[in-house]
Amino acid sequence: MQDEAAVWWDVGMVLPADATLSDAGEFGMIDALAGIFEQGEHVLVGPGDDAAVLRVRTGHVVVSTDLMVEGRHFRRDWASAGDVGHRAAAQNLSDINAMGGRATSLTIGLAAPGDLPAQWALDFARGFADECAVVGASVVGGDLTQADQIVIAVTVLGACTTAPVVRSGAQPGDQLAMVGRQGWAAGGLAVLGRGFRSPRVLVEAYRRPEPPYDAGAEAADAGATAMIDISDGLLADAGHIAADSGVAIDVHRGAFEIAEPLQAVGAATGADPIQFILGGGDDHALLATFPDGSAPADWTVVGAVTEGSGVTLDGDEYDGPTGWTHF
Amino acid sequence: MQDEAAVWWDVGMVLPADATLSDAGEFGMIDALAGIFEQGEHVLVGPGDDAAVLRVRTGHVVVSTDLMVEGRHFRRDWASAGDVGHRAAAQNLSDINAMGGRATSLTIGLAAPGDLPAQWALDFARGFADECAVVGASVVGGDLTQADQIVIAVTVLGACTTAPVVRSGAQPGDQLAMVGRQGWAAGGLAVLGRGFRSPRVLVEAYRRPEPPYDAGAEAADAGATAMIDISDGLLADAGHIAADSGVAIDVHRGAFEIAEPLQAVGAATGADPIQFILGGGDDHALLATFPDGSAPADWTVVGAVTEGSGVTLDGDEYDGPTGWTHF
Repeated sequence: MQDEAAVWWDVGMVLPADATLSDAGEFGMIDALAGIFEQGEHVLVGPGDDAAVLRVRTGHVVVSTDLMVEGRHFRRDWASAGDVGHRAAAQNLSDINAMGGRATSLTIGLAAPGDLPAQWALDFARGFADECAVVGASVVGGDLTQADQIVIAVTVLGACTTAPVVRSGAQPGDQLAMVGRQGWAAGGLAVLGRGFRSPRVLVEAYRRPEPPYDAGAEAADAGATAMIDISDGLLADAGHIAADSGVAIDVHRGAFEIAEPLQAVGAATGADPIQFILGGGDDHALLATFPDGSAPADWTVVGAVTEGSGVTLDGDEYDGPTGWTHF
Repeated sequence: MQDEAAVWWDVGMVLPADATLSDAGEFGMIDALAGIFEQGEHVLVGPGDDAAVLRVRTGHVVVSTDLMVEGRHFRRDWASAGDVGHRAAAQNLSDINAMGGRATSLTIGLAAPGDLPAQWALDFARGFADECAVVGASVVGGDLTQADQIVIAVTVLGACTTAPVVRSGAQPGDQLAMVGRQGWAAGGLAVLGRGFRSPRVLVEAYRRPEPPYDAGAEAADAGATAMIDISDGLLADAGHIAADSGVAIDVHRGAFEIAEPLQAVGAATGADPIQFILGGGDDHALLATFPDGSAPADWTVVGAVTEGSGVTLDGDEYDGPTGWTHF
């Protein structure tokens, strides 16, 4: 009998532990999910009304939105519900980081089959809430509906204390610098794709990325001229900065330390491990340009900005995989 | 040859008029979509960066999010892409209206099969943009990815000039009042569900709702104590106000004028047309409570707030369909 109350302790409902979303019903499920999310002091009206109302101190709001689709952005056999929650939050929080801002509030839309275990949705929500707690952000609203496939839609709001760092400000003579793990999640994905579970540290990096959440605002304070979070792939995202800034970027292959687990996966799969670093996009490291010598100490200089267009690797075109497109 | 340029004139790309999302590619499609959305003066950074940056004047932001799933919330054979765009925008703008606010900015997430015609996505975006233009709101960001089924995720931001009107403030002695068409969309849906296309005015009401966008702020100014937009169904949404406010609400059946097209559908389908009004939820009319006699002139008093709990119709329980649930 103990199992029966397990799922629903948040709101005192009693359903079997194997209850589905359909068993729980829309409103019961929304109540249970809302009970998971703690509200910050800036939340004047939280979940449960037509809209949430948030206090904004800075005179502006930074906003971004992302979709995650089961089978395309995650697989339930490769990551737990909690992991998916962490990742969904992390990739959105990272977008605010990449503007030099700090996230304050998020909304979640969850579309899912009616036979999805209610426990999956609750575990997802707890993982999401735990990741938001890392930066002190609140989940202030959401929507829940039925679909053939799980689709997770997140919108994140935040604020900057300095001018936001856009992609278009890189100048010839700037240095390209990076902070955060890069390539680990791609290595983990390669491992999972071959049916393995180790090196475990890479699999965990894929399941729960650890974006450098403090680094975005630090970079803005240090005078970063352009910034992006690496989500399409390092070279692809360097390409976004180059295109939007009207400059060329040369990436220095020797600047990247190839961590031991990446070397191991390279050896096991026959891939050059630099490919994980140059093409990987799920770690949410930050890539930014700074006037010469002004990158913060914990950033690594990985390239240079020059006049021209496009991205090169040590002066040459790179013909390996550069990243990820959605169609 | 004229057709070939038709789809892509926004960005100068030339693809066949029957191009799919996969043909267009993610970045080409995003550029084409972004070109459709005009940016208001409050948009400091628009689409195309990691996040948008918006100027906020009032010290707060009102935020809401909604999902629409093909086959569940819309059918491509029942509504054009432009219609779906209008509806997706309208139901979100309406949530800000129901707080007594005015919408300023929206984000769109579009998950869709790779074989979706690119033209569908562009027509959807134009319909969405046109509806946003009715209230002067801007589409400031979005995401596009592949899924088995079309899922549209919208988040809307807005502001209130007075205190936001929540669902929990209704007081015994208040009047319940409504503004906007109600039941027309449900009538249109009933018509479409039987394979018909008339009365055309009802079908159009379903395809392109016309929420009373100015009425929310007017109600807030007039001292509304609680407000909701009718999206689950009139009685169901009255129930949300009653539950959140800790009051009882009695709805007066005789207060509703049954418009001629609803009478016609009732006669044709054998349904009591009052059911469309009491249970329908796609018109996005507003339902609010006001201190006795203070509802604005264009609102209709349709009930009364008393001590107790629950919703009744002329003092009795109502056993017809009261609305819509998602699981």
